[in-house]
This record gives sequence, C-alpha cells and structure tokens, in this order.
Amino acid sequence: MHHSSRQIRLKKVLRQNRLDALLVTHLPNIRYLSGFTGSAGALLVSERQVLLFTDGRYKEQARAEVEGARVVVGCKAALVSAGEWLNENGKREGIRTLSIEAQHLTVADRAQLQKALRSDTRLREVPPLIERARMVKDEEEINRLRSAVRLGSSLFDAALKVIRPGTKEIEVAAEMEYEARRAGAEGMSFETIIASGLRSALPHGRASTATIPPNGFVVCDFGIILAGYCSDMTRTVHVGKPNHDARNMYDAVREAQQAAIDRVRAGVSVAGVDQAARKVLTARGLGKYFTHSTGHGVGLEIHEMPRIARGQPELLGSGMAITVEPGVYVPGVGGVRIEDMVVVSEGGCEVLTPTSKELIII
Amino acid sequence: MHHSSRQIRLKKVLRQNRLDALLVTHLPNIRYLSGFTGSAGALLVSERQVLLFTDGRYKEQARAEVEGARVVVGCKAALVSAGEWLNENGKREGIRTLSIEAQHLTVADRAQLQKALRSDTRLREVPPLIERARMVKDEEEINRLRSAVRLGSSLFDAALKVIRPGTKEIEVAAEMEYEARRAGAEGMSFETIIASGLRSALPHGRASTATIPPNGFVVCDFGIILAGYCSDMTRTVHVGKPNHDARNMYDAVREAQQAAIDRVRAGVSVAGVDQAARKVLTARGLGKYFTHSTGHGVGLEIHEMPRIARGQPELLGSGMAITVEPGVYVPGVGGVRIEDMVVVSEGGCEVLTPTSKELIII
Repeated sequence: MHHSSRQIRLKKVLRQNRLDALLVTHLPNIRYLSGFTGSAGALLVSERQVLLFTDGRYKEQARAEVEGARVVVGCKAALVSAGEWLNENGKREGIRTLSIEAQHLTVADRAQLQKALRSDTRLREVPPLIERARMVKDEEEINRLRSAVRLGSSLFDAALKVIRPGTKEIEVAAEMEYEARRAGAEGMSFETIIASGLRSALPHGRASTATIPPNGFVVCDFGIILAGYCSDMTRTVHVGKPNHDARNMYDAVREAQQAAIDRVRAGVSVAGVDQAARKVLTARGLGKYFTHSTGHGVGLEIHEMPRIARGQPELLGSGMAITVEPGVYVPGVGGVRIEDMVVVSEGGCEVLTPTSKELIII
Repeated sequence: MHHSSRQIRLKKVLRQNRLDALLVTHLPNIRYLSGFTGSAGALLVSERQVLLFTDGRYKEQARAEVEGARVVVGCKAALVSAGEWLNENGKREGIRTLSIEAQHLTVADRAQLQKALRSDTRLREVPPLIERARMVKDEEEINRLRSAVRLGSSLFDAALKVIRPGTKEIEVAAEMEYEARRAGAEGMSFETIIASGLRSALPHGRASTATIPPNGFVVCDFGIILAGYCSDMTRTVHVGKPNHDARNMYDAVREAQQAAIDRVRAGVSVAGVDQAARKVLTARGLGKYFTHSTGHGVGLEIHEMPRIARGQPELLGSGMAITVEPGVYVPGVGGVRIEDMVVVSEGGCEVLTPTSKELIII
C-alpha cells in the first residue's frame, strides 16, 4: 500500500505552500491518504504528525485499516476531537494556522471547528490540494481501475440478454446490478442509466419504469465500485432497424469519441480533447446536440479532476484516468453516447474498456 | 401533491423569523418543497417569489417536475444564477439579507455565492428550518413510507432463502437488491448490512466477501427507496443452534425494542424512548454493549431529524416517522439488532414494519 508515500507527498505540498497543517475532512481524501473507509473521521496532517480522529463506532475498523497515521478515538464528532487535540498540542507542534478543505467543509462544520479551537489557531481555506494529487494514479490504483473496468464491462452482456421491446428499463438495471454484486462489486458507482426510445435524448435518464419501445436507441451508462475504485462506461444499442438518421447519429458519435481518444496524450490540454470530439460532431451538423463536456477523471470517486471540457486550463499528465464520452441528444428523437475509460501515457493512452463499439441492433 | 402548501408553511416560518428570503441548496429540501429531483439546483423562497434555478441539463425535467415555483434555466452553476438574479431583482423584492442553509453549503460555495452577489446583499446562516418541518410527515408522505416499508420488508424473505453456512454475505445482499430493483425500487437507501458470525458485533458491518459461518448471528440491516422515500429495517437471524447466551442476547434486544416502541407517543421526549430501551438492556447486564442511539427520523433521507438519543431535547410529535433499533454488540462473540419503522400518533404509534421478530434459526 502507498498510503505513507502519499502522506509524504502531501507534506511536501504543505511545505511548498507554507501551510502548518491540513485537516482533511473529505472521506475519499482520508481513504486515499490513510486507508480508512469509515463514514466518520478527520485526518490531521502536519510536518510531524498524521492523526486520524474518529469515534467509538469505528475503533476496531480504524485500527485495522489505517496505515501511517495514529488513530485517536474520541467520544465527540471527529472534527471536534481534532479541534481539542490542537488546543492541547497545536502550539508544541508549531501549528498556528490550520488549513481546511473549503470545498468539503460545510459552513456549519467550519463554525463548529472554529468554536472547538482556541482563538490562537486560525483557519485558512485551501483549494483541492489532495484532489490535485489524486489526478495522477499510481500503479496500484491503475490496477484497481483496470479490475473495476473489467468487471463493469461484463455487465453490458447482462444488459444485452434482457434489452428487448416490452422490458422495463429498471429490469435491465436490476439484472446488471445483480451481476455486479454477485461478481463482488461493493455497489454501483452511480445510479444506472438505461434510457430507451425518446428517453435516450435525456443525458441523465436514470432507469425508469418505462418499457423499451419497439424501435429506438437505448443508452446504457453504468459503473461499479471494486476495492474502492469506480468504473464508468456507456454503450448505446438500437432496438429494431435503425433508419438512416439513426445510423448517421451513431456513426458521428463513434467517430467523435475515437477522435477524442486519439487526441489523448500527456501534455495535451483537456480542452483540446473536448475540442477533438466537438469538431467531428459540428462537421456532421450535430454540434449543438452535444450538450455536456467530453469527460472527467475517475478513481475513488466517480467524478474527479480533471474535467475534460471547454475553457479548462488543465494539461493531461501520464497516469491520469479519465472518461471519454461525447454524446448527441435530439429532443423528440433520441440520443447516443459512447464512453470508455482511458489512462493517459506519454505517447497516447491505454483504453481500459474492452467492449466493442460496433452498433448492436436488437 | 403538497408542494405549494409546504412552501406556504416555509414562508410563514420565514416571516416568524424575520427572514427576507432563504436560498435552499440541500437537494432533498428542494425536492420536498418543489418536486424537483435533479442533481443541480437552488430554490429561492421569499414572501413573493419561489424560483428554482438549474442548468440546461435539467431544463425539461425541471419543467415537468416542479410545482409552485418558476423555473429559471441558466448557463452557470445554480448558485451563481441565483446570485445574479438577486443582483437584478433583490432590491425590488425587498431582499436585503439572504439566508443560507449552513449545514448544507460548503465554505467554497458560500464564497462563490458571496462573490456573485453585490455587496448590498448580506448572507445569514440559519439552522435547519426545512428539516425541522420535514420531521412531521403529511398523509401523502406516510403513504409513501408505508409502501417503501412494505417493499423493503419483502426483501427479508429473499435473504432467508440464501442465508446459510458457506454463502457469502455479499451474495445475500445481491439477492435482496435484485428483488428490490425488480419490485420497482429506485435503489437501496444505504449500503446493505449483512454481518455474520463475529462480524455481527460490528454495528456497521456492510456485506463483505466473508462467508457465513456454521454457527452465529447474521444481522441484516437494509432499506430501499421508493417514490423518493426511504425504508429502513433490521432483523437478526441465527445460523445453527443458538446457545444460552445467544438466546438471552436476542431476547434482551427484542424486549428492549418493544419497550422503546411502547414508550413512543406524541409529547414524549426522544431521550425517554432511548432510555426505555437502554433500561431493559442495562437490567439484563448488556447496557454497555448498546453503543449507539436508539433511532432516527426517516423520509426523503435515510437519516433525518429527530435523533432518538440521550441528551436530545426533542419531543415526539404526531406524524413523525422514526426507527426504533436498539442493538447489542459483544466483541469476539457477536451482535443482535432489531429495527422497525414507526409513525408517531397521539395515543402511541403505528408500527409500519410487518415482519415477525421471533428468532429465526437457520
């Protein structure tokens, strides 16, 4: 496990930014840095200390899971325990200013923490430092993502067995989620999207009680969690014979998706990858129906940095794991989305998703 | 639907507290007040206006779902759209101070909102006003909870079919979740807990890849979401012949759970209900193994107000829906928890969960 080396990297970031200490409150960040998977905790990282605060419910679990950090079990909320520890030890440890994760602490929790702290410890809001580090995956993380993607992609076969006119969307999701669980997934990484017929024009068409109509697209967007890591993929199939427009729409999205994948390599801007997909769809007259961004990072969370979108300044780096998922949604007609997960490398990328992108007609 | 009447009640609360307007950012609160189920939105409620801000992705959905509010579709984050609307119209509408939900807005979002607002609109942090209103369920909500509980309880039969020595905990969860989906549930209301053998001593033993041992308790704690409303129940079964201590532990928890249910009625303090369960377990010499609180409210969220715990000042009111779930966890031995959902009435309560609490031996 790489928890200790992740802590060392964070300490370096703290030094570079002249931060005395960071109180990590976002659970995926705590898991990333320490291995703790419980639902109540706060991790204090300073030059000399790494402490996980939790409560009695997680005493055994924290001691079994946590690496590279001392576990402090309190009777109060983890945030308050951390505050009280700082009152006792902050001065000795040279912690005058405590950095907090502004994007993950609520206004009420900030006030509670401030109240627990003596007035000589100041709070300082910092940007997502750990999320930034998490963008680049280490070898163990890539292996876990690979396993998650492999298991996730097998659910598409389960979907194909049941997608037919008259089946409810929710029944398709049920079969997929059942397979996921039986194969050892901890759960789904987001609400399964099965959007059929006119509903396929909804980018976020969660599986509903609607029945699949005799003709039209079915967008299947789904992912699982395995050993903490998320998978994410989309395939779109067609029920009944597709007409010329439907074929054209599918081919355009497939071409756009491939163009974006071809653009991925270390050093390229995320906006450039988005642009590659958008350019194809615009040339095909479908640009205005591509209403979302091209992708996002994936790891311990289903949506991570970077966003693969227009106007984003980020450059891709080796080891980043991202989705590539352009789509086209024509209201009153239908929609298509195709999505793979890829890992960025110096020379290009490795496409993790093994599933064919040929149009399947059911 | 009761959305408009819920908005009227909130406006009354705003008047009573002399608040110009509240910007609702917690999604379950937005759903409660307007019917909107999308994942990006902000609801502005003032004496004269109810406005739902969202973005292009949810345009169709918002217009189909929202009741009693005008939908404003912007190109920016909902929070920023709301801020810009206030800059334009706040003065005319008499909104000088904008109240925010301190428990649901992050420090970063607060800063973003403040930045979007002209300096003549002040932000004011308010306690959970809507959560307070949500404690008491209206008739439609109770009907939905009843349906959710009924469907949820049917999953226990699915569990009983597969719980046996050698089955993996996760396989039991898979069967239950499959049944849930096939029966029309939107999903599980929390990660299914199947904790067998020594793991039953973990109050939060999520279904793992552990196999059920030939002898010991299996705690099954699970719930589903149906039409937005959550169910929550726990039953504990015993695999193999229980010894004297195991029987005693089960009987004690069952007695404690019944004592707590018997205590529930409008006007009683939540601490009193907790105390009723705790008293039984203490008399049986098991008090120190009851390490959590006795219950919590349930509705659109799995954990709502009130907490049924020591030191809580809340009084029960007619129409509150709560869980009653004492448990005993002996490290190195095992654990038992029994949980029902009940609706508080003037004279006592209605137990929604229909499932028997006799000890089932497998």
